[in-house]
Amino acid sequence: MQIPEGDLDLVAVGETLIDFISTDEVDHLSEAETFRRYLGGSPANIAVNVARLGGRSAVVSKVGGVAFSQFARDELRRYGVCTDYIVTDPEARTSMVFVTRSKRTPDFEDFRDADFRLAPAELAPAAIARARVVHASSFAASREPCRSTIRRAFSLARDAGKLISFDPNYSPRIWPDKDEALATLRDLYRYASLTKPSLDDAMRLMGPGLAPEEYIGRFHDMGVRLVILTMGREGILMSDAGKLLGHVPARSINVVDATGAGDSFWAGFLVALLDGNSIERSVLFAREVVETKLANVGPLPAWVTREVIYQRLPILAS
Amino acid sequence: MQIPEGDLDLVAVGETLIDFISTDEVDHLSEAETFRRYLGGSPANIAVNVARLGGRSAVVSKVGGVAFSQFARDELRRYGVCTDYIVTDPEARTSMVFVTRSKRTPDFEDFRDADFRLAPAELAPAAIARARVVHASSFAASREPCRSTIRRAFSLARDAGKLISFDPNYSPRIWPDKDEALATLRDLYRYASLTKPSLDDAMRLMGPGLAPEEYIGRFHDMGVRLVILTMGREGILMSDAGKLLGHVPARSINVVDATGAGDSFWAGFLVALLDGNSIERSVLFAREVVETKLANVGPLPAWVTREVIYQRLPILAS
Repeated sequence: MQIPEGDLDLVAVGETLIDFISTDEVDHLSEAETFRRYLGGSPANIAVNVARLGGRSAVVSKVGGVAFSQFARDELRRYGVCTDYIVTDPEARTSMVFVTRSKRTPDFEDFRDADFRLAPAELAPAAIARARVVHASSFAASREPCRSTIRRAFSLARDAGKLISFDPNYSPRIWPDKDEALATLRDLYRYASLTKPSLDDAMRLMGPGLAPEEYIGRFHDMGVRLVILTMGREGILMSDAGKLLGHVPARSINVVDATGAGDSFWAGFLVALLDGNSIERSVLFAREVVETKLANVGPLPAWVTREVIYQRLPILAS
Repeated sequence: MQIPEGDLDLVAVGETLIDFISTDEVDHLSEAETFRRYLGGSPANIAVNVARLGGRSAVVSKVGGVAFSQFARDELRRYGVCTDYIVTDPEARTSMVFVTRSKRTPDFEDFRDADFRLAPAELAPAAIARARVVHASSFAASREPCRSTIRRAFSLARDAGKLISFDPNYSPRIWPDKDEALATLRDLYRYASLTKPSLDDAMRLMGPGLAPEEYIGRFHDMGVRLVILTMGREGILMSDAGKLLGHVPARSINVVDATGAGDSFWAGFLVALLDGNSIERSVLFAREVVETKLANVGPLPAWVTREVIYQRLPILAS
């Protein structure tokens, strides 16, 4: 895979959110009394993880109001993420997601405003020009005008020879119209060269009952070259241009906090790929990153540097 | 004042909100890390206080989503407020206000959605028919279609001979267009018979520098008959049909929590007025209620019954 030039390893286009996570463990959101606020949104989380691993990253998002836009910027800067391409709309409100802390599947409710209002004209072409990878995901693509902004970012990125990554993290709660979601994915996969569906994403989008290789085939059919299918305990399948590259098994670990695991995996993969590693070695790197994430509460711990992760990889795979 | 019939003492039309109040004392909202959620919104608070004082009340509001609309209904029911006229829009989100707990003026940011979407066709005429007092305030009147819904509620109420109360709790943060606010007030005061401006409200709406009696005159000029001007430590002025009825001094108390003080005052006033008390005695009743509220953290304590408050009033004033 040709690795492009740019002083920003990753430019993530999409939602920067405030996650309000209940401080108590409850089953239903209506029971949650107190909430702690965190920086959220999958693209922002990936940008943070790339920065934590020593990469340079930026987020292209729209936030709103005063207090929570300030908090989002401060948090991104604290992690070393470039916020030059974040647009603040004082008339709008920074989008929020309220989530239960729960042993079961968390209950959540989104409160969207600023994120989906990011318009194509508000996308700075310089952000794309500086990028090595341009990344986006399904949440932000679910509504206009942000959907068109992602398309424009991908179009500029393709013209400039950048790597283009799309995470089809589809949720019917966020995007009830599945046909529209599939049509949007088909559109965006005309540009994207890399994608990371989870098996759950694939089943939600394409219905249950297919073999993992069949799901991968469906993604290739939509036009994307590299498919990294994550399957939880069943490990990871890699497929390049329709050719299965292999399977990386998951290892048994004590999961302490699964929040943002997929984002840490993909940040690790992209960082390793940009370092010039093979796809398989990049997946091994990503597996080390996500295992570290899963074994710790909160974001990636500060001691997780790129060097630490490389030292843990087998020397042979390169 | 003619006291109308109805099995609901108060029907409050306007916002039912979720107040997210920071658990720590901070000066700026962007610094607040954790928030506790409370039922909020001035009309809902007045309805709760009327119920707490043994009156029957209902709220006409629009809420949204699942978890927070459920919480708002549960809270209102827990206090004995009728929720039959609350409309839930699953496509919208229950409006929220984020507030700092602070020794200074609290910092806040609103996140409005469902509340202002209450449309005139969603107002049940039965709610107005059942009311003795129909009440609304400035927050909900700041946006359409809710503004038209309040006008319709007031129009129905006037035709049915109800008492109509309006709280001009004006905030430029919520309603930046002051001219529009004044025009709306002029419109709504064609219907309203009672109003409770604070001196701060009056100054924000009409500019500083006038004597209290001049502010009262301005409200009368807009068409409202009874003006109860609350002036904090300077006490309360009462004016009926342009005639100053008198002044009730504030008493020195140890303020523990000022949140919702104005709403508890007005709930007390309306309850006493509906009991057939004079305006002055109703204000004395309201002063007892608000002093109890100010001396306790949170909503009116459960031991505050109508009887307890009456027992504290001087016997002569009747």
